[in-house]
Amino acid sequence: MNTPLRIGMDIGGTKTEAVAIDAAGDVLATTLLPTHSGVAAVLATAQLAVEQLASALGCAVSDFASVGVGIPGQINRDAGEVQLAYNLRIEHLALAARLGERTGLPVSLENDVNAAALGAAHLLGLDGTVVYLNLGTGLANGLVVDGELQRGACGVSGEIGHLPIDPLGRPCPCGQRGCLETAASGAALRTYWPAGGEHPGRSLLPAIDAGDSDASAAFEHLVRGTATALRMLVLLLDPHTIVVGGGLRLLGPRFFDAVATRLDEWARESPFIAELHIGARLRPLPEGSPAAAVGAALAANDPAQKSCADAAKR
Amino acid sequence: MNTPLRIGMDIGGTKTEAVAIDAAGDVLATTLLPTHSGVAAVLATAQLAVEQLASALGCAVSDFASVGVGIPGQINRDAGEVQLAYNLRIEHLALAARLGERTGLPVSLENDVNAAALGAAHLLGLDGTVVYLNLGTGLANGLVVDGELQRGACGVSGEIGHLPIDPLGRPCPCGQRGCLETAASGAALRTYWPAGGEHPGRSLLPAIDAGDSDASAAFEHLVRGTATALRMLVLLLDPHTIVVGGGLRLLGPRFFDAVATRLDEWARESPFIAELHIGARLRPLPEGSPAAAVGAALAANDPAQKSCADAAKR
Repeated sequence: MNTPLRIGMDIGGTKTEAVAIDAAGDVLATTLLPTHSGVAAVLATAQLAVEQLASALGCAVSDFASVGVGIPGQINRDAGEVQLAYNLRIEHLALAARLGERTGLPVSLENDVNAAALGAAHLLGLDGTVVYLNLGTGLANGLVVDGELQRGACGVSGEIGHLPIDPLGRPCPCGQRGCLETAASGAALRTYWPAGGEHPGRSLLPAIDAGDSDASAAFEHLVRGTATALRMLVLLLDPHTIVVGGGLRLLGPRFFDAVATRLDEWARESPFIAELHIGARLRPLPEGSPAAAVGAALAANDPAQKSCADAAKR
Repeated sequence: MNTPLRIGMDIGGTKTEAVAIDAAGDVLATTLLPTHSGVAAVLATAQLAVEQLASALGCAVSDFASVGVGIPGQINRDAGEVQLAYNLRIEHLALAARLGERTGLPVSLENDVNAAALGAAHLLGLDGTVVYLNLGTGLANGLVVDGELQRGACGVSGEIGHLPIDPLGRPCPCGQRGCLETAASGAALRTYWPAGGEHPGRSLLPAIDAGDSDASAAFEHLVRGTATALRMLVLLLDPHTIVVGGGLRLLGPRFFDAVATRLDEWARESPFIAELHIGARLRPLPEGSPAAAVGAALAANDPAQKSCADAAKR
């Protein structure tokens, strides 16, 4: 091939999606595999995804320029290591080196939410300041300014889910109390509505319609918490656009309408909030968008990060 | 002169500081004038400051390349207008055009906190992600990434003071309840400690030592609110450095030690918070630093902003 293609991969709790993109960032091939937990299974699936993309494009694995991997957990980009990815039952994995050995390609890692932020800005053609809010099992955000991912100093930015907003709120596993994530996340749905099972987002709206009051309460917490997160992100970052992604966005128009109604109520109480036009900035990520995989491919080209140790030394 | 100098000016509630900087951003001359309220007085003082700098440097006003003005209130950079600068008793002023007529120089405006953020990053030689937290009459922040001021879409970013953190907290003039600014600001000090008068920061510590329990309570609210603001800024933005400016920073080591103690308590309760090393990121702005004036001079070169109307249209 004349222009080397780049691979991007999103290793999620249930599925692994991989894409090959060209120099313009256009997606030329896609593959989707089930994720199995644990180090060996994650590595094998990632390697298989690379081989499937080569096969789909009729090229050799060595024809690709790079592999960027978006993955949950604590990421050390410089070392190419991931830690504490509980969904994947990974304590620690030198993923860049191990996948590099298996493919012969340079591999770099990115936090999955950061990858989705970069990919969403690219796929939706958004410039200026773009915030990506991920409504998944947890609640987190990414920030892209003029096409550049903003990672901060130590790779801990985007923790909107751990802003405490209520001194009397529920204890959070992080050790704080009343964090936004205790209201607006898949984990919060399970807490407020235990009957919803492992994937409560899928059955929440039917349960509300069937008169389940716990489901209604869980939905109300989710709506209020999401609206609060959006308000805080606009107050601090004033983004041109907030892209809402994550599995819970698939609750769809009924959820987004409820969030908009809550934002409108606050706007009526406060001219200051009204002027922010928070609702006008929202864009749900389209269903099936390969944002995280594409973003991981794009992020692979970024230079190494200034280390957190340097930051703390000052 | 060979290299045209740029003027930067910080029009504050009590004083107007102006500097002339060279191409490297070094300060060659400074002037300090009392601010008087109202449109006519503000314009006259700004003009006088420009003339004094020319006189100090032995040059003509027309030798300067530009004037950047940092000013509180709502700024429309494109139009060069400021609105609702209550401290200065200005409802609306086309300051760029009016000062331009008086000096013959191109004039641009910047929010005062943004200007201080940019100037602080420059004067302290900070790269990476720098947050500036202004503890003044209000509570607000600025964000500079790799030397570039991040203004967001509509000029409303940096409103850390209006993040609501307590549903049972005090009503805020903004129309919300429990905003951080109702705890951590000069305005909050006046609310909790009315005996402190117009400038409570100046007499707060002596009053505490004399056994004034209202003063102690006001100080405790300030410490807790400031520590909360720092925690939220780190969780969302993960900055290499947070520069703390504004008049209340002059409470000095006793205040910063109390904030550090509070942060340490939270770190003991939460390993997640402990890993953020929030205290290690703090830098008080040195007393007398002309950060806002220098930042206003530097910001004058920035291109016009994408307008908020464009952002809302999407």
